[in-house]
Amino acid sequence: MSFMPLISVSAFAPASIGNVSCGFDVFGMAIHEPGDEVTVSLAKHGEVRMKSITGDGGRLPSDAGRNTASVAVQAFLRHINSTNTGIDISLTKNLPLGSGMGSSAASAVAAVVATNALLGAPLNKVDLLPFVLEGEAVACGDGHADNAAPSLLGGLVLVRSLQPLDVISIPTPPDLVCVLVHPHIEIKTRDARKVLKEQISLRDGVAQWANTAALVAGMMKSDYELIGRSLVDVVAEPYRAPLIPAFYDVRQAALQAGALGMGISGSGPTVFALCRGREVAQRVSHAMAARFASINLESDRFVSGVNATGARIVSAL
Amino acid sequence: MSFMPLISVSAFAPASIGNVSCGFDVFGMAIHEPGDEVTVSLAKHGEVRMKSITGDGGRLPSDAGRNTASVAVQAFLRHINSTNTGIDISLTKNLPLGSGMGSSAASAVAAVVATNALLGAPLNKVDLLPFVLEGEAVACGDGHADNAAPSLLGGLVLVRSLQPLDVISIPTPPDLVCVLVHPHIEIKTRDARKVLKEQISLRDGVAQWANTAALVAGMMKSDYELIGRSLVDVVAEPYRAPLIPAFYDVRQAALQAGALGMGISGSGPTVFALCRGREVAQRVSHAMAARFASINLESDRFVSGVNATGARIVSAL
Repeated sequence: MSFMPLISVSAFAPASIGNVSCGFDVFGMAIHEPGDEVTVSLAKHGEVRMKSITGDGGRLPSDAGRNTASVAVQAFLRHINSTNTGIDISLTKNLPLGSGMGSSAASAVAAVVATNALLGAPLNKVDLLPFVLEGEAVACGDGHADNAAPSLLGGLVLVRSLQPLDVISIPTPPDLVCVLVHPHIEIKTRDARKVLKEQISLRDGVAQWANTAALVAGMMKSDYELIGRSLVDVVAEPYRAPLIPAFYDVRQAALQAGALGMGISGSGPTVFALCRGREVAQRVSHAMAARFASINLESDRFVSGVNATGARIVSAL
Repeated sequence: MSFMPLISVSAFAPASIGNVSCGFDVFGMAIHEPGDEVTVSLAKHGEVRMKSITGDGGRLPSDAGRNTASVAVQAFLRHINSTNTGIDISLTKNLPLGSGMGSSAASAVAAVVATNALLGAPLNKVDLLPFVLEGEAVACGDGHADNAAPSLLGGLVLVRSLQPLDVISIPTPPDLVCVLVHPHIEIKTRDARKVLKEQISLRDGVAQWANTAALVAGMMKSDYELIGRSLVDVVAEPYRAPLIPAFYDVRQAALQAGALGMGISGSGPTVFALCRGREVAQRVSHAMAARFASINLESDRFVSGVNATGARIVSAL
């Protein structure tokens, strides 16, 4: 079998729902669409460069030391002792910035997955996560994995520990469908963290860990009602919900339309609902968007099953 | 089919491991032995009375308004509108008091299960839990269900919510074996709660709910290593461990002997370890007891699989 060195690889990495309500900083779940696409090519200049960025309205840094995608690639190259390899990165942003859909994670994931493939796949997919987190740290000021891990690996992921990294895939039931509704306002992850308290009551803690445990049980038992009951966040949501206009009204609309539960995706402003079946999910997505529209807030709707694959190679030349 | 009214029923309710490390106030797991036994008999005096208590060294109240067993039976009788029914309760304590093995819960569970059977089983087992909790509240000053639920229902139980009561059975893997070692000191639940902080850091909270979620995943995936990694408690153990002599040395001994993990059972002083297989568990139990013995602390050892049944009727006349 002959080996043809690649000169260019494109990878897609999907959006993800961070936190999934109760699992602040520990749960994330990948959806199918939208996602970011990154093309990496070998270059003779011997550096990592952001060659082009489209879809960001000119807002993302093209400085390779500050863009999540290039920082992640640099970290990967350091690890495999290939810091002299020249890589041109072309990033196509399909995810809105500051949306709570794991935008920065998706860019970093796609860049590292593509680069790994370009260089003959020296590492397994799961082992790419630390480099993605280095990219994430540039964007969020802090390396969390609740978007990076699901965008990379797919499915519902539990980040049990960051140091050492301990990432666990949680099976999800077949009829689970995710709804994301992105109202056209922007919240920076950094700002959304500032509203949180550094201390929580033990009582709230007990409620939160009861629900994370119950969500895993609900997923693994295919108990949709239990999944719904567990989608409760007493730690972050009470402080972040006021940043999202009509949040509680939108939730009421989602539940009335048949959603199992609804919460904030990551740090918002995107809100997500989990539903049983695609028909209910479509109805729920319309009800949520209509409620935002009633206060003159435009939004985008996404309806998707759980993406069990995560990032994938789109093309290789 | 003729119906013979019963005049006397005996029930057994097992000890349980409260909290199971990470699941403070939400997890409990039943073992086979030891447990308390209660005999209830119909009596013409038309009240609930503690007829006899053995095995407690004369320390439990025989006042029916203050004993967990009789208080639970009174709550049950109120619910079924049978407050004029006379019940004599004979309690055989096999569980040490203030041990962290769910002693008060077991007495209340056995009493209510026996009384329900005596009166023709008007309620299902799971529906008896609220009355047990009323009994528990007398002993602990607070109605928790992390011992009552597993002692009643068996297995590993997640108490997702007390109001409304939401109790979820978590499957456990076949080779899981529990070790309990009860050093001969006593800690009152009430006192063990006093050492806890009312506030915890968000960072500790995140670690705790990552571990409760991971423990459920480990149990349901039969991933013994993951079970071990998840048996971490950053919320209660750091404050309660100092109440148990040589706690960290005993843990080290347990892990060296092959335990998956070790923690405090309920509020202590009993410590528990989870192991894969009975042979390892025997070795672990000896190592733990030996470590207590090295500081001249006597202890009792119990090795048991998970009790999937919970409380059971022992005899009915």
